[in-house]
Amino acid sequence: MDKGTAADIEMLEEALAGMVAPWVRALGLRVAEAHAGQVLLRLPVTPSLVHGGGVLCGQALMAAADTAMVLAVMTRLGGFKPMTTVQLQTSFLKPVPGSSAHAEVLARVLRMGKSLIFGEILMHTDTGDLAAHATTTYALL
Amino acid sequence: MDKGTAADIEMLEEALAGMVAPWVRALGLRVAEAHAGQVLLRLPVTPSLVHGGGVLCGQALMAAADTAMVLAVMTRLGGFKPMTTVQLQTSFLKPVPGSSAHAEVLARVLRMGKSLIFGEILMHTDTGDLAAHATTTYALL
Amino acid sequence: MDKGTAADIEMLEEALAGMVAPWVRALGLRVAEAHAGQVLLRLPVTPSLVHGGGVLCGQALMAAADTAMVLAVMTRLGGFKPMTTVQLQTSFLKPVPGSSAHAEVLARVLRMGKSLIFGEILMHTDTGDLAAHATTTYALL
Amino acid sequence: MDKGTAADIEMLEEALAGMVAPWVRALGLRVAEAHAGQVLLRLPVTPSLVHGGGVLCGQALMAAADTAMVLAVMTRLGGFKPMTTVQLQTSFLKPVPGSSAHAEVLARVLRMGKSLIFGEILMHTDTGDLAAHATTTYALL
Repeated sequence: MDKGTAADIEMLEEALAGMVAPWVRALGLRVAEAHAGQVLLRLPVTPSLVHGGGVLCGQALMAAADTAMVLAVMTRLGGFKPMTTVQLQTSFLKPVPGSSAHAEVLARVLRMGKSLIFGEILMHTDTGDLAAHATTTYALL
Repeated sequence: MDKGTAADIEMLEEALAGMVAPWVRALGLRVAEAHAGQVLLRLPVTPSLVHGGGVLCGQALMAAADTAMVLAVMTRLGGFKPMTTVQLQTSFLKPVPGSSAHAEVLARVLRMGKSLIFGEILMHTDTGDLAAHATTTYALL
Repeated sequence: MDKGTAADIEMLEEALAGMVAPWVRALGLRVAEAHAGQVLLRLPVTPSLVHGGGVLCGQALMAAADTAMVLAVMTRLGGFKPMTTVQLQTSFLKPVPGSSAHAEVLARVLRMGKSLIFGEILMHTDTGDLAAHATTTYALL
Repeated sequence: MDKGTAADIEMLEEALAGMVAPWVRALGLRVAEAHAGQVLLRLPVTPSLVHGGGVLCGQALMAAADTAMVLAVMTRLGGFKPMTTVQLQTSFLKPVPGSSAHAEVLARVLRMGKSLIFGEILMHTDTGDLAAHATTTYALL
């Protein structure tokens, strides 16, 4: 799959830089690919994200999932509109080793309703294991 | 309700300082109360946690919920044992205004099984509105 | 707690009889209590609901949870309005023995928004153990 | 994709007939395809499953999802072992019209751990629309 248009990726990088809370921006998420309804982010596994058990903290994965889905919705809206997360359910299948370079966070819009949007986020280790799986609902305001 | 024993609160504060990933520690969570199977954390609403829409970012609430539940489990185990979050489902009922002093994060163990632990987390604004509600499963390793 | 008004209970029993799919009606759910935003149903544990493992099947608990929440919403709306379940998350904490007389299904509205409604359902055995816990979102159409 | 071996399909049909609670059996679920870690069931949309709003009741979809996942796990275990549903989260994306012939229920094992199993269930209308999406965790006993 190609990476998507440079314009889309730039729009999403700007949204990351301008709209996301500074604490979430500190995750260092980067837009790797962007298509209509689908966005792939890369989450660098830095020491600040690793807990005492030596693996990437689940909180970072949930935060990345939520952020990725907002961007995936933007690719369908053609830009930002006010929206809110209604619910996010995350299952943690396999730890991401703290020694990983990054985790891959792939968000997909499953259904774009008039007011409700449904999506799914797959999070993989950089060796291709499925680490976490999230489903989510957003509401346009 | 009393705050719980100072020894319990100290043990949990130490776990926050020593085991939690630095990025999560940056949330500035404080243990306000601790009882067997129940922990109340306070999450300061600082500008770094507020997104472009002017409200506390949902990612901070999910991270606080997960952290609070680990501490609530510790009050039942009498200390830390290796465990992992199996799943966490969060519903976002009402935004926490960015001008709030803090959010209250109350985690309760609903069932302590031999290997699986079920819990619930209620997150309130400092004016007493229910902002978010999470349910979660942990596995002892 | 008192049982609530007979008029409310009658309205909800009629909704159960008239609107619910026949297959769900076969559960034999009865309205035990009804208050504004809260409904208690009783689910008889009959042999048709018990699976090969000798316990009440989880499918019956999920179906009862969803049904109970529709009725709890009706107590807030003062009657039926078209609505749809957006999502339902159920955790199964402890099996309900097949020899039980019934399970208790308590649905509570947590937040009544203009278009979205959030709720929680607690399911107990007839000996008072928490068997299942569900959270849910509904949308008014 | 081929339908899978007749032996697998027969084993799963027998499990449906012998282990599932009679009330769930009344759904009339049929095994359409079976592969290692993946099972496709067909849920006939009969009048008994349609509620007052004229669409397939969500309770039937949740029950089918849970049942399909048990069968998908069996294809990996090579038969039945005692297991329990830990949690099931279902999102309802689009109603299944009551006039449909059937809904398709595709369950996939996402991760087979030693004690915990993670899965996903996609439910489509017979015209190919995604109607519901579930994620679930099972525990081997």
